[in-house]
Amino acid sequence: MAQGLDARAVTIYSPILDKLALVEERLQDLAQTSIPELEPLLDHALSHGGKRVRPALTLLASSMIPLESENPIRMATGVELLHLATLIHDDTVDDADTRRGRASVSSLWGKEVAVLLGDYLFATSATLVCDTGNLRVVRRFAETIMELASGEIIEYFNTFNPQQELDRYYDRIYRKTASLFRTASETGAVLSAANEEQVCALKDYGYNIGMAFQVVDDLLDILGDEAELGKPVGNDLRHGVLTLPSILLMQKYPLENPIPDLFSAPRQDESLARTLDMIRNSSIVPDCFAIVRDYCDRANRSLQCLPSCDSRESLETLADYIRERSR
Amino acid sequence: MAQGLDARAVTIYSPILDKLALVEERLQDLAQTSIPELEPLLDHALSHGGKRVRPALTLLASSMIPLESENPIRMATGVELLHLATLIHDDTVDDADTRRGRASVSSLWGKEVAVLLGDYLFATSATLVCDTGNLRVVRRFAETIMELASGEIIEYFNTFNPQQELDRYYDRIYRKTASLFRTASETGAVLSAANEEQVCALKDYGYNIGMAFQVVDDLLDILGDEAELGKPVGNDLRHGVLTLPSILLMQKYPLENPIPDLFSAPRQDESLARTLDMIRNSSIVPDCFAIVRDYCDRANRSLQCLPSCDSRESLETLADYIRERSR
Repeated sequence: MAQGLDARAVTIYSPILDKLALVEERLQDLAQTSIPELEPLLDHALSHGGKRVRPALTLLASSMIPLESENPIRMATGVELLHLATLIHDDTVDDADTRRGRASVSSLWGKEVAVLLGDYLFATSATLVCDTGNLRVVRRFAETIMELASGEIIEYFNTFNPQQELDRYYDRIYRKTASLFRTASETGAVLSAANEEQVCALKDYGYNIGMAFQVVDDLLDILGDEAELGKPVGNDLRHGVLTLPSILLMQKYPLENPIPDLFSAPRQDESLARTLDMIRNSSIVPDCFAIVRDYCDRANRSLQCLPSCDSRESLETLADYIRERSR
Repeated sequence: MAQGLDARAVTIYSPILDKLALVEERLQDLAQTSIPELEPLLDHALSHGGKRVRPALTLLASSMIPLESENPIRMATGVELLHLATLIHDDTVDDADTRRGRASVSSLWGKEVAVLLGDYLFATSATLVCDTGNLRVVRRFAETIMELASGEIIEYFNTFNPQQELDRYYDRIYRKTASLFRTASETGAVLSAANEEQVCALKDYGYNIGMAFQVVDDLLDILGDEAELGKPVGNDLRHGVLTLPSILLMQKYPLENPIPDLFSAPRQDESLARTLDMIRNSSIVPDCFAIVRDYCDRANRSLQCLPSCDSRESLETLADYIRERSR
């Protein structure tokens, strides 16, 4: 079973807990390989734990108007594996030594191995999606990998750039995060008996909670405490990444703003502390909360065309859960 | 048009030159993007030149028993793009500053960007293959990426290991090289009017010339001259990679052999020179030639069930061409 699920998550996942356990089993099965060099790598990569929120989305979306089929489980496994592959490449790009308290693949075996293992897992995830026999979800899956990679490229080239437009931020977090959330729920729906309107509704749901999820993440980087985050507060700014709160700060105080100083080297700690203080003590935090609420409301509104059932209730509770994380 | 094609290649490609030009056009079209950060990267990656032998294989295989369709061009473009993506990751893993006389992506923009650009191109190549609408070729394509990545992982973990079995060498070069050659010809056939026996024949053809191609490459690393290779002679051994000639040397002289010395650090230049001399002055070189000839003969024999036509003649000439490279 996915580790680290709290009581709330178990409630949300309850309509699909059995299927999620099968996804977990399939992930573990993938660690069986005839290639001895790969064995310890797969073992490490696939026992990553995590909340499994993306495969849960696929399973919940597919169980709304269900079809008797293994396909949602195949798809959900592919979605989670894709997520694990991107984490390995992200840690390589970001030079991150740890991930969820465990050593990263790149710190254990070197960046070379991390690049190749990520490639192997990307491709493995694609074969799982091919096993659904549904070309539409395969294509959407490939497009998602393009969006994930281009989102990271856009972020990389804009580090330490204090001038960033809001619409480019939204585009970037769509690519980095919401794209895979959208794909998770959309493909679950495509692989069920849902009609096109319902597929579209579940796609919109995934998009909106993905956007909310990332904005909350960006907010917690500024408001959270170090112990909870598992990384220092202000980590994004420290690495030159502007997110919603800091972009709003630049817009609100275009002239007297510590961010350009922070991004141009000296006295960083002081500028960082000033930036965090200014954000925390302004209307920016409630503005960001309002944006999260808006995404979550849109997510739940998009579910209205779907039948009332346990799975729909779970998706609504998930949106509420994300909304509450931001308070 | 693909750059650097010599007269022989033009003859081989003559039945499909028009289609290969369309592949080239599509590759250039892919450089058009709405993402400004990606533009210079795609521009650089897609103007790589090269002999385009893999897409030529797809086009020749598909024109044996042709169907009126754009699919072989889509597939050939995907095959070449996959090749370009792997080169970018390989250069990142190998820390290579140049590729075909041009700066590598990782040396120009850093390894971080090279990892992400490779991911983007892998995924883009998969969307092209999805556009064929044929799930069988999409799945084969994903498996090929798994084989390519695992081949590189196996090679990486066996560097500086002087004890390697021949069958593991053959498995490794299948994954690294012959897998994509096989996929190029096999998918071309699947996307034509070929029957299953003919598909299988063209798959075998691709496999065998892929294996021959890599053995020749490994031989040239020892027999070639620096100017022609564009890299120092003995480059594989210098980087701790055993290939067919050096594995045969270890088998022939298990006791008095300079390779364990070469792989365990000091006096490397002397051990390298001795290793190269021993290989050159033994029966190993003609033995390797015989293995190449054998693969090429098998490649050509597998074509016997196919109709006599220009494309079949081209494939036969290609096998002869690879055989001659090894003399």
